[in-house]
Amino acid sequence: MVKRSQTGARKQKTNKAADKMNKTMEKNKMKKMRKVDFTSSVITSSGATPRFENAVLVIGLPGIGLVSKMAVDHLARATHARRFARLYSPHFPNQVLALKSGKLRAFTMRFYEKSLKKRDVVFLRGDLQPLTVEGQYEVAAKILSFARRLGVTRVIAMAGYAVQRNPANAGEKPNVYCAATSEALHSEFKRLDAKPTAGVVPIVGMAGLVPAIARVYGLEGACLLVETPGTMIDPHGAKALVEFLGKWFGEKFDTHDLEKRAKRAEKMLRKFEEQSQAAQGQPAKTGAPAAPEPIKRESLSYIR
Amino acid sequence: MVKRSQTGARKQKTNKAADKMNKTMEKNKMKKMRKVDFTSSVITSSGATPRFENAVLVIGLPGIGLVSKMAVDHLARATHARRFARLYSPHFPNQVLALKSGKLRAFTMRFYEKSLKKRDVVFLRGDLQPLTVEGQYEVAAKILSFARRLGVTRVIAMAGYAVQRNPANAGEKPNVYCAATSEALHSEFKRLDAKPTAGVVPIVGMAGLVPAIARVYGLEGACLLVETPGTMIDPHGAKALVEFLGKWFGEKFDTHDLEKRAKRAEKMLRKFEEQSQAAQGQPAKTGAPAAPEPIKRESLSYIR
Amino acid sequence: MVKRSQTGARKQKTNKAADKMNKTMEKNKMKKMRKVDFTSSVITSSGATPRFENAVLVIGLPGIGLVSKMAVDHLARATHARRFARLYSPHFPNQVLALKSGKLRAFTMRFYEKSLKKRDVVFLRGDLQPLTVEGQYEVAAKILSFARRLGVTRVIAMAGYAVQRNPANAGEKPNVYCAATSEALHSEFKRLDAKPTAGVVPIVGMAGLVPAIARVYGLEGACLLVETPGTMIDPHGAKALVEFLGKWFGEKFDTHDLEKRAKRAEKMLRKFEEQSQAAQGQPAKTGAPAAPEPIKRESLSYIR
Amino acid sequence: MVKRSQTGARKQKTNKAADKMNKTMEKNKMKKMRKVDFTSSVITSSGATPRFENAVLVIGLPGIGLVSKMAVDHLARATHARRFARLYSPHFPNQVLALKSGKLRAFTMRFYEKSLKKRDVVFLRGDLQPLTVEGQYEVAAKILSFARRLGVTRVIAMAGYAVQRNPANAGEKPNVYCAATSEALHSEFKRLDAKPTAGVVPIVGMAGLVPAIARVYGLEGACLLVETPGTMIDPHGAKALVEFLGKWFGEKFDTHDLEKRAKRAEKMLRKFEEQSQAAQGQPAKTGAPAAPEPIKRESLSYIR
Repeated sequence: MVKRSQTGARKQKTNKAADKMNKTMEKNKMKKMRKVDFTSSVITSSGATPRFENAVLVIGLPGIGLVSKMAVDHLARATHARRFARLYSPHFPNQVLALKSGKLRAFTMRFYEKSLKKRDVVFLRGDLQPLTVEGQYEVAAKILSFARRLGVTRVIAMAGYAVQRNPANAGEKPNVYCAATSEALHSEFKRLDAKPTAGVVPIVGMAGLVPAIARVYGLEGACLLVETPGTMIDPHGAKALVEFLGKWFGEKFDTHDLEKRAKRAEKMLRKFEEQSQAAQGQPAKTGAPAAPEPIKRESLSYIR
Repeated sequence: MVKRSQTGARKQKTNKAADKMNKTMEKNKMKKMRKVDFTSSVITSSGATPRFENAVLVIGLPGIGLVSKMAVDHLARATHARRFARLYSPHFPNQVLALKSGKLRAFTMRFYEKSLKKRDVVFLRGDLQPLTVEGQYEVAAKILSFARRLGVTRVIAMAGYAVQRNPANAGEKPNVYCAATSEALHSEFKRLDAKPTAGVVPIVGMAGLVPAIARVYGLEGACLLVETPGTMIDPHGAKALVEFLGKWFGEKFDTHDLEKRAKRAEKMLRKFEEQSQAAQGQPAKTGAPAAPEPIKRESLSYIR
Repeated sequence: MVKRSQTGARKQKTNKAADKMNKTMEKNKMKKMRKVDFTSSVITSSGATPRFENAVLVIGLPGIGLVSKMAVDHLARATHARRFARLYSPHFPNQVLALKSGKLRAFTMRFYEKSLKKRDVVFLRGDLQPLTVEGQYEVAAKILSFARRLGVTRVIAMAGYAVQRNPANAGEKPNVYCAATSEALHSEFKRLDAKPTAGVVPIVGMAGLVPAIARVYGLEGACLLVETPGTMIDPHGAKALVEFLGKWFGEKFDTHDLEKRAKRAEKMLRKFEEQSQAAQGQPAKTGAPAAPEPIKRESLSYIR
Repeated sequence: MVKRSQTGARKQKTNKAADKMNKTMEKNKMKKMRKVDFTSSVITSSGATPRFENAVLVIGLPGIGLVSKMAVDHLARATHARRFARLYSPHFPNQVLALKSGKLRAFTMRFYEKSLKKRDVVFLRGDLQPLTVEGQYEVAAKILSFARRLGVTRVIAMAGYAVQRNPANAGEKPNVYCAATSEALHSEFKRLDAKPTAGVVPIVGMAGLVPAIARVYGLEGACLLVETPGTMIDPHGAKALVEFLGKWFGEKFDTHDLEKRAKRAEKMLRKFEEQSQAAQGQPAKTGAPAAPEPIKRESLSYIR
């Protein structure tokens, strides 16, 4: 179902014409590079930019209970999706990471693609939400504009919906709620038992913003809300979202390692936050705040 | 009096030329969609964009006593005005609403149009004012630039003018004051008993900004200030503004349900504000704050 | 010495060609109006935009002791300079004024022009400095870019230099210090007894920024610092600046009404500030804060 | 190894063609000047803009222990590098300096160039880091885009890495750590004994940001971290960086005056900070805060 764009044409034609085309493409890329001014976000692609027909964008960024991020990270891993682009943004922190491997890494959001049985899917994974209100709009716009160009027609975001009771303790499955910009999308989710909210519910951050303004780009948008007790990390809620999307995709995803990962992540997150608080005492001009106790790269899987 | 623009031509011509034109228009719209980057506000139109000669733009956004918003909401309803465009803005909150109906809604301002006996009128209704100073200028500019293109030549905004006494208690009609960028507009309002202010009065927010910088767009602007006791919601002041504009428009508008709506709105506003305060404790990255007690969609008529 | 630009050609030619030209000009102005988006500052001109050879821009904005604003306001009045342009900015407050006359006024900076004996001068008068750091750079750039187009080659700003002693009390004239981007300009001021500062002195705000970055526009810049006791309003310092510029311009300006105006202004400023503090308690969305005691328009001469 | 660009052609050809070319160049520069709007940073060049093949950009801005700034300031002085460009930015403070010499100076970053034996080097020296997160991205982009145009292919930044122990006291050399965006660059530094960090280390500010996003411009980037006790000024760490780069450059730099300068700088910095704190009490609109005790220009060598 995937139609590779011209820019992704494999180098099978080794004749002069192809060589010339490659050179022109390279030149154009160079020119484009120079003009990047980081007054707005930047998407860079590694290799071919895919083109789809009626693909779905599924967004997993940090939020309440980390349910959305955990669900999409899991889906991308489980489906062996291919990373094809990164989004850099001036609305991310002015901070980067020196890794144990010697790599120097900026904060980014990353696009992955996978052709599932019924649908082509683009996953958006990221370490954080843009830092300012205006920044959230700008990044949302960059994502939607790019998605449209890829051939995405539907945008699904997810979030935790904090409730008093803990569905996990009661041995129950948490409910999934749905709000959409189109009747069609809403009906599909309703058929899978997603309910509308009992009243008006405000959704703060990218999980609401991206699907809501998808309209402006001629795309359908929906936000799935899963009940969560509001703990730091809620693998139960993440699992419910994975299963819900599985039903919609017509696929079955194994979720048994979700809880294991979640525990490791929670431990590490606590450590990271203590560190961050220590670092915040430092003025912005400082080079590198002290890292008294090294963090293992692997345990950062939910941070970057 | 309304001259529909070419882009609004009804699909009466079903010949090939018309088909081709529609395709081209659609293509252009698609191209435009992709370029929307949300670094500034965006206006999207549903259906035909009207073109007028010497129309009046009447702005009703939240402010002191909600007088301006209530008046314009009432006028748009009473005249059965048609909504034809929406304004989205990065200067609105990074927050959207999941409605009981399953709809997902972003905060917007909305344009309505109506041909009254003496004048074509465009009403601007909205849930909120842009969040930052620079944002207020940017949105004001977008409104004025769009209004100019529609054929608007005069821009009227309204605001409450907080006074110690409560005119309603004294059984008196609140006074209406007027400040305008042109002598002509000022004279017209003066003839209807609007007075200049007794001294220099600062007007904060969009109610002053939009008509004041209308000059830059070659448009006349005025701000009507109505005496208000400064309560949360003042239907008395709103009524006075509706009656004042009615005289200017040469029409009589029934206002008997204004007070009833106002009471419902006040009750609901209180509830919403308590909720908002609870939500503010949540960090920006959270997904959806808890909504312990569902709010009825209907009661939100003055919020969105 | 003034060469009027083509756009200022008097309507002496009443033939068709001139008519056509006027229509084209009008159309272009209309097109330009629509595009104003207030993401940066806007300069509008009333009537002909003058063109000079080697004119001087003299900037008078509020600062320590109001010395600079008072001096330039006095010079513009004393020389009967003609106002020819206004600068609006999203970096000014989202606030406008309803005047006793019924006029609605936005905050602006205003350009005046006068051909003095030795030099053509452009005065820049304004009510305030842009509210943010980035805003100050943006407005400075707009001023310098416009000045360059007018034919300005030198930019003079002024500021108070707070000292412990009060030169006025000692019956002494306050010293004038000078810092410039070019040797030539510095020498001219040195010849008139302006001294370099005894050490490194930081200058905060537009008075330093505009002449310092004038270099980027190929213009010479200087900042004159006058000793001031740091009182709210210091007519003594303003007088010293007027006299200093008078010597440089080769003209003598009467300054006897400066002190009288200063006293009136001080009284009024105190009243205005109390009011502003009261108004600041109001949220940004409010319409018009109460003005318990009307301020006379005339007494606002140093506010707007 | 340096190839001068066309714009730097010496005026050896004194024939008409050259004259004409110069005039056109001058005109273009004039046009460009007018368009500078300071909504983003601006680079101005004095004289010819050099063009290199595979040059290295070495960045020295203030940070922990001032190690990076001191190292690059020392290298630029020791190699007698030539200044060829300045960067002005709206993300620097709205503040300038009146110098004892009568000069008026804006805050800038400055580019220097030098052809070393093995490599062409561009040094970036500056007084400060941009004030906001978005500003840091914007300035980083301007630097990288410019560097790319100059023919730079590698970007090296440095920072202090605060540790508990003081290597200097123990008579030991501080360790140098390295994180890079490319394997190749990392290997070269590893060969010179730079180690990867023991775990994930966050780097705050330009020292991490510029090399990390160098990728987006097709450039290799690395950040060198030197152990530092976290004192205000750490000449020991700066010396270690100079020696490390010396080895990489295949040159030996004398460092005996580094410590002497550092002591003078520390004394002066303390004085300057006290002054700055005093100045901060002043509102942004003030002209020039008092400078009770003059600072010697020379002693400011580490501030500007």
